[in-house]
Amino acid sequence: MTKKGIWLAQETTPEQLNTLKKLAPDYELIEAWNDNDFDFPLEDIEIIYGWKGQKSSELLTNNKSRLNWVQGKAAGVDFLDLDGLKEKDVLLTNGSGIHSISIAESVFGMLLAYARGIQEAIRNQTTKTWHQTDRLMELHDKTMMIVGTGNIGKEVGRLAKAFGMKTIGVNRSGHEAANMDVVIPQKDLVKKVSEADIVVNILPLTDKTTHFFNDTVFNAMQKRTLFLNVGRGPTVDTSHLIAALDTEQVAFAGLDVFETEPLETESPLWERSDVLITPHISGIAEHFKKRLFAIFEENLQAYLAGEELPKNLVDYERSY
Amino acid sequence: MTKKGIWLAQETTPEQLNTLKKLAPDYELIEAWNDNDFDFPLEDIEIIYGWKGQKSSELLTNNKSRLNWVQGKAAGVDFLDLDGLKEKDVLLTNGSGIHSISIAESVFGMLLAYARGIQEAIRNQTTKTWHQTDRLMELHDKTMMIVGTGNIGKEVGRLAKAFGMKTIGVNRSGHEAANMDVVIPQKDLVKKVSEADIVVNILPLTDKTTHFFNDTVFNAMQKRTLFLNVGRGPTVDTSHLIAALDTEQVAFAGLDVFETEPLETESPLWERSDVLITPHISGIAEHFKKRLFAIFEENLQAYLAGEELPKNLVDYERSY
Repeated sequence: MTKKGIWLAQETTPEQLNTLKKLAPDYELIEAWNDNDFDFPLEDIEIIYGWKGQKSSELLTNNKSRLNWVQGKAAGVDFLDLDGLKEKDVLLTNGSGIHSISIAESVFGMLLAYARGIQEAIRNQTTKTWHQTDRLMELHDKTMMIVGTGNIGKEVGRLAKAFGMKTIGVNRSGHEAANMDVVIPQKDLVKKVSEADIVVNILPLTDKTTHFFNDTVFNAMQKRTLFLNVGRGPTVDTSHLIAALDTEQVAFAGLDVFETEPLETESPLWERSDVLITPHISGIAEHFKKRLFAIFEENLQAYLAGEELPKNLVDYERSY
Repeated sequence: MTKKGIWLAQETTPEQLNTLKKLAPDYELIEAWNDNDFDFPLEDIEIIYGWKGQKSSELLTNNKSRLNWVQGKAAGVDFLDLDGLKEKDVLLTNGSGIHSISIAESVFGMLLAYARGIQEAIRNQTTKTWHQTDRLMELHDKTMMIVGTGNIGKEVGRLAKAFGMKTIGVNRSGHEAANMDVVIPQKDLVKKVSEADIVVNILPLTDKTTHFFNDTVFNAMQKRTLFLNVGRGPTVDTSHLIAALDTEQVAFAGLDVFETEPLETESPLWERSDVLITPHISGIAEHFKKRLFAIFEENLQAYLAGEELPKNLVDYERSY
């Protein structure tokens, strides 16, 4: 029998590699950033750190695979074959918490770009136009509805409170969450959404959240609501969002995620001045490698000790 | 002798006008938004709320003027004839404090536009370009030097702390200020500026602050410092700033104010992708009228009672 392998599909620093060698001396550590670098028998891989390319998927369909644990890097796991992983009893842990700070900062960057006339000024700069707009607002004293009260939602809420805003959290059961003045269950969203000046969507993609933001929700908003999506593209019905922008039901949409990515050139979103498009970058974290490794290290220690994985174990029933 | 007048050069709401009528029944309230509307004898004006157009300046040169108090609306008073006002013993109160929230929000809007790739994304949107940059940073854990620790500086510092930053305040004497981890006197700025990742300039314009930010200061910064100016344009030597951008001593400049405004079309600043230009709008406050009137009302009550003006009395020796 060959040695068991840990595939490092996510880049590691020399220090991190040393830590792993000491922690898991019985395992082969396979550094391979792309499929061609890969010369280790696929069936001997027990653990993957990260998830990359064709080979990752082959692991699941390989009958001899002994894959036992995937440490993903994103918070969302919708791009993985969850049914395949579940069927083979593979443990799945995600990168939840790593991206909270960066996504929350991006949320406020997009919001302030609109509120403080910065988006307009950046466009005007391209034509050397000095134009003092009179349509400026402040975030201070506004009400923000935060749909999704996980790590990212809580960090968005924390900053919202610092900006002097009121916060309404939304989650499935309406259970309490940090930095939310009130929390309501998802089923009450349509009833309460008109209280918000700003709605931030941080929903994960599951079969229950597809097109969650549709015209029923947009029509229930107050006129000229600001809407942000840093969750997953397909949780929003784009055609309904565009209709809401046309009627000024939504005054501004800051979108980091889209139903298809990259966003197709034909999309009418590109040319709208009331839309700010960022190319799925809000989660890019400056200290990503350090933070992801800390999660992996803590989980690996528990794994090798035969204990339950303590960080970010995905519940296949909820899909996150 | 005609009635004494209060010239309302700043727009007031009907409610505010009523308040003034009750407060100062012995005064004529003159609503005049432009010079042509004006048919009250200039020499009978004792108080101006706001400052507007040619007539304001004539008040100072008119020998028979009994002008006694100017309630300005901006925080900066450099555009007024301070020598003229001082010579005639005219009291001057400014709008300091009104703009703190809006300017602080604009500071973070400009910073996050750079840090989170939003400025680049807005430019790319104009050409329908989906480009995921790898140069993203977080404000979290960075160090911000805040030059000027008045109302605006304190509010910038408060938000900086909420973003998880360290704050270094700079003022003339190095006296303590809220929301600053440390405060240093202006004379030590060059020695300490390399500790900052971000430098925010909120200096008022006086004869001591002209070209305060010059190559001595820029050269003392750490490589790739982010620089923001929401103070006054002439406190920065623009040619030295451009040289610092060229050498990447400064990686990004967010500028709301300029040596000449509107910024001249010939300025090389317009075409730089490492510069974000906003047209002197950071101080535009959503609740400006309400906040300015609150200052005027409190001062007027004291004025009529023969007391010292409690809010924002300008010290002509310091010029702010």
